[in-house]
This record gives sequence, C-alpha cells and structure tokens, in this order.
Amino acid sequence: MTDRMCQSAARSVQARRRISELIYQTPTLPARVLAAKTGCDLLFKAENFQLTGSFKMRGAASKLTALEPGQKLITASSGNHGIASSRAASLTGQNLTVVLPENVARAKLDKIRAFGVDVILHGAESGMAETHAQSLAASGDYQYVSPYNDYHVIAGQGTIGLELLEQVDRIDNIFISMGGGGLISGIGSVLKSFGHPPRVIGVSAQSSAALAASMKAGKVVETEHLDTLADGVAGGVDEDSVTLPLAMDVIDRVVHCSEAEIAAALRHLAMDENMLVEGAAALALAGFMQISDQLREQTSVVLLCGANFDWVKISSIIKN
Amino acid sequence: MTDRMCQSAARSVQARRRISELIYQTPTLPARVLAAKTGCDLLFKAENFQLTGSFKMRGAASKLTALEPGQKLITASSGNHGIASSRAASLTGQNLTVVLPENVARAKLDKIRAFGVDVILHGAESGMAETHAQSLAASGDYQYVSPYNDYHVIAGQGTIGLELLEQVDRIDNIFISMGGGGLISGIGSVLKSFGHPPRVIGVSAQSSAALAASMKAGKVVETEHLDTLADGVAGGVDEDSVTLPLAMDVIDRVVHCSEAEIAAALRHLAMDENMLVEGAAALALAGFMQISDQLREQTSVVLLCGANFDWVKISSIIKN
Repeated sequence: MTDRMCQSAARSVQARRRISELIYQTPTLPARVLAAKTGCDLLFKAENFQLTGSFKMRGAASKLTALEPGQKLITASSGNHGIASSRAASLTGQNLTVVLPENVARAKLDKIRAFGVDVILHGAESGMAETHAQSLAASGDYQYVSPYNDYHVIAGQGTIGLELLEQVDRIDNIFISMGGGGLISGIGSVLKSFGHPPRVIGVSAQSSAALAASMKAGKVVETEHLDTLADGVAGGVDEDSVTLPLAMDVIDRVVHCSEAEIAAALRHLAMDENMLVEGAAALALAGFMQISDQLREQTSVVLLCGANFDWVKISSIIKN
Repeated sequence: MTDRMCQSAARSVQARRRISELIYQTPTLPARVLAAKTGCDLLFKAENFQLTGSFKMRGAASKLTALEPGQKLITASSGNHGIASSRAASLTGQNLTVVLPENVARAKLDKIRAFGVDVILHGAESGMAETHAQSLAASGDYQYVSPYNDYHVIAGQGTIGLELLEQVDRIDNIFISMGGGGLISGIGSVLKSFGHPPRVIGVSAQSSAALAASMKAGKVVETEHLDTLADGVAGGVDEDSVTLPLAMDVIDRVVHCSEAEIAAALRHLAMDENMLVEGAAALALAGFMQISDQLREQTSVVLLCGANFDWVKISSIIKN
C-alpha cells in the first residue's frame, strides 16, 4: 500500500460521511447464469442502479459537499458527469453552471436545466464547451469541477470500495472500466488499503485507450480515439492528471477489449442477467469474459458503472 | 390483524432462520425514471435477481428445510417452482422427484436434471404431470410439494416482507401479482402483523383471474384461462386452498390488468429502469401504473417476482 493509496482511501471514508444521504447504496448482485457458464463466483456491483444511472453521482456529490457553500462552480458535460453534477447541485444548493455545446440534444438540455442549474451554450462540440468552461474557471470567476481529475471526485468513486468491503467477504479479482481513471483509482485505493487486497484489473476499450497507453509510457500520452460502444469512458487524460500515478499504483493488470467483445458482453447482461447497461459497463464484463478461464472458483466482482444508453443503439445490439 | 395472518407471519420468522443461507437477500431498488414520470416514491423489491430467477426459491427452501430429512418428496413443474424446488433439494440433500410432461422443452429438462433430482416424464401436458404427481403422493409413496398451497411455502415467500421491513422505513402501498396466492398471502401477513400496515394491492391478469374471482365469490371458483404474458401466475386455485382465506384477509384492493397494460409495463421496465423481467413481474408494475395518479407522494413498492422469460417473446414486445 502506497501513501498515495492510503490517503485516497482515507478521503473516501470522509466522503462517505458527507454523501451517504445523497446517493443510493447499490447492491452486489450474484450472477445467476454467467457464474454457471464460466465456473466462477461472479458478482456485479450494480452502479447501473445508482441515482442518475451512473457512479458519477458519487464523485459529484463528494466534490460539491467538500466545497464551502456559495462559490460559483462550473463544469462541462451533457453526459453522466453533467447530469450527476447538476443533481448534486440541486441537492446541496451549490451554485453550478454547466457549459454545453450548442448542438446538445434537446432532451439532455432539458434534463440538466430541470435541476435548476445555469446553462451556457458554447461551441460546436463538447471539446469546445469543455475548453470554454476551463477558461472561465482560469479567469477566476468560477471553480472548475472535473469529471475525474480531482481528489474529492476520486474519493467519491472510492465509496463503492467501502460498500464492497461490507458486502463481500473476500474479493479475489475486481474488473473496472478505464476512462479518465477516477473510478478505478478510487476503488482500488480503498480495497488495497483496507481489505485483503484483490487483483485490480483495468479494462480498456481498444478504440479509446488513453489511460492504458499513458500507464505503459509512465506519463500522459495522446492516443487516437475511435467510436466505441463504451462511449462513457472514451476520451483523453488531462495533462496534469492526478489519476495516472494512482492508477499505476492500484492496477495489477490491464485487459484490452474489442468492440465485438463489448457487444457480446452487452448481450450476456441482457439475456443471461437481465440487465440493460451502457457500453462502458459492459466493457468491464467483457474484460472478465476474456480471462474467466483463469479465474475458476475465485470470487470476481464486475463493476457495472452505469445504465445511460441510447435505446436504438443498444436494442439493435442485443437483438443480434 | 387476524390470527391467521399473525400465525403466517410467525412462520415466516421461523422460515427466515432456516433459509437465510440458501437464498439471496434481494435489494430494494429505487425507480429512477418512473418515479419522476408518476410523481410517486417508487421502489422495486427485486426478486428478479433472486437465485433461480424467481421468488419461488424462498418457498421451496422453506418447505424442504421444514421437513425431516430422508422423506421421498414429489412435485410437478418445469417452471419457476420446479427449478426452485430442484435447487433447494440439491442444497438441502432432500430426496425430490419432479414429474414433467413428456413434451417438456429439452433445456428445461436438462436444467432440472442438472440439480441431481429424479425426473418422471408423464402425460401430454403439465396438468397431467401434476395430477400424476398428486396421485403418487396420495398413494403414500411420496409427500407432495405444492407450489403455493402449503403453509411452509407461504411462510417462505413471506420472508420478502421481513426484508422489506428492514429496507424501507414506511410502505404506503405494495403491489403484488396474484397467482395461486402464496406470494401475496405470505408478504401481506408479515407486513400487516409486524409493521405500519400498508395497503396491499393484488394485481390480477384479466386473462387468468381465478384467485380474484374466488375472493369475490368467497370460495374457490373456476374461471377461464386465456394465454397471458404473465404466464407465471396463470392457472386455477386448488379446491382446498389455504391461500384463499389468507388472501381475503390481507388484500385491500384488486386491480385487473389487460395484456396491453402488461406489455407496456414490460417496456417501461426495460427502457426506463433497464431490467428485463418476466410477464408476471411486469403485471405488478402494470397495476401500479393503472392507479399511480391516486398515489402521488406516497411510497409504493412493486414486487418484481421473477426474470425467467422466453427471450423471443420478450424481445419482440420491448422492441415495439
């Protein structure tokens, strides 16, 4: 256990005390069919049933409760982080502005506005909205709320690990999708600091593998980003990312999955375990399926990170 | 609270002590989208994630642990009760024979045989298999294990109520699908004996409404049974059913749902709450949806009783 991990785990304990009334303690569901198919003891940590449909609610609630009230906060996301931050702002009374690209889908705009936050429409796509939010923060008018590159956000995601310690006697392996690294860093730090340390397996989409490539290089590197079913974890890693060193501390192994493997995992979750999840959640199961023959009779946890998906896209995949 | 209810509730407490290691304590999941759509506080008791994919595991485990070891037991079901009884037999070491119709689907036969129980193939359809099992029991060679018409089975289903008392502060309404009546009698007895009594709402499929008709008549009556999406609760009520008087004690209101309403509820569960369930589970939600405008700001629990469905049938419905 490194000092960095231990400090992150301690911040998760603090975060849990602040956010316990704002989030839902998600269940750990035993796999029924896939356990038999693979010969493994398999459990799902079901953040797909978290409020706002994503684990991002934890990090956002952790950040907003850690700040003094009355500050002007800003973020940029029409996805899971934007919805989670907006809901956290409505629950805590924090003053949040969300920057969205001008072409944001009407349904997402309405959903975010319904939480009573301020909205700025700026730029032709989400990258430009994000840059605008960061420049407004740099000018001193706002404090920026990052989706992952923030110790309080990481600590919030780590509260999943604290629940797992109470829910599962002993975890041999845990599979977590890799995006910016906040989720795996937070949970890994908790499990390795407080419990019998499991093997932490990061699952990376081949189509968008910035964190995995950065870990290999030992520094933040840019990679090509192709379209992926796991769009919730697509994108680069910030230049100054605090998640990279933590991720390098906690991750024991990286598994790379193809789009076909992610689609197969989506189908398994629908047909065998009867849950519809987003691609980023199926990615974690895809990693487990790829190496499950090495894990017989061990206890593995697959983290299902969310359930916010495009219905047309998902239903066309599970029909195949 | 009637004496009958109180005695049933007490048997549930005893049953819970016997079966706690054999079943999964299912979570109570907060509805994310349907709560907002209806303006109600809505929770799902998720027996769709129970071992064997159905609440029947509780009743079967309760019955098999209540009997002295070494008896010869017999039942007849290729559905949720048959699978649950077989699994309970494999866990408890009880000697179980399952009678199945000669045309039983190969997958179901294999699934039941995999639990190590004895199988007798008899008759052209499930009614004939059931009659054969009951006649073998009447001859004295076997003890019959009913899917619902048995105090130990009812007590096992009632353990769901004991968990709900710990999981939810106060329930105003609970919606439970009506089949033979074991589920609603068991849960209703517990909630009305031990907690702030909620309104217990039985949800009946218009296409197969024997229990509702019998309650109205005050005695067991036969009704026509048409095909229903809620096939898990289809069928008549035994002549000597112990569930009828209990059901009449605990049920405050019966809501009747059409096939179109059940299909709509299946779609809501898939698209809004991201769970795929069997028609009998969707039936309970259909009942809630029908009267939700009378339940604003109240806390309602919808019991999702199982997730064993025919993939082709369900996927064609949720695509519509």
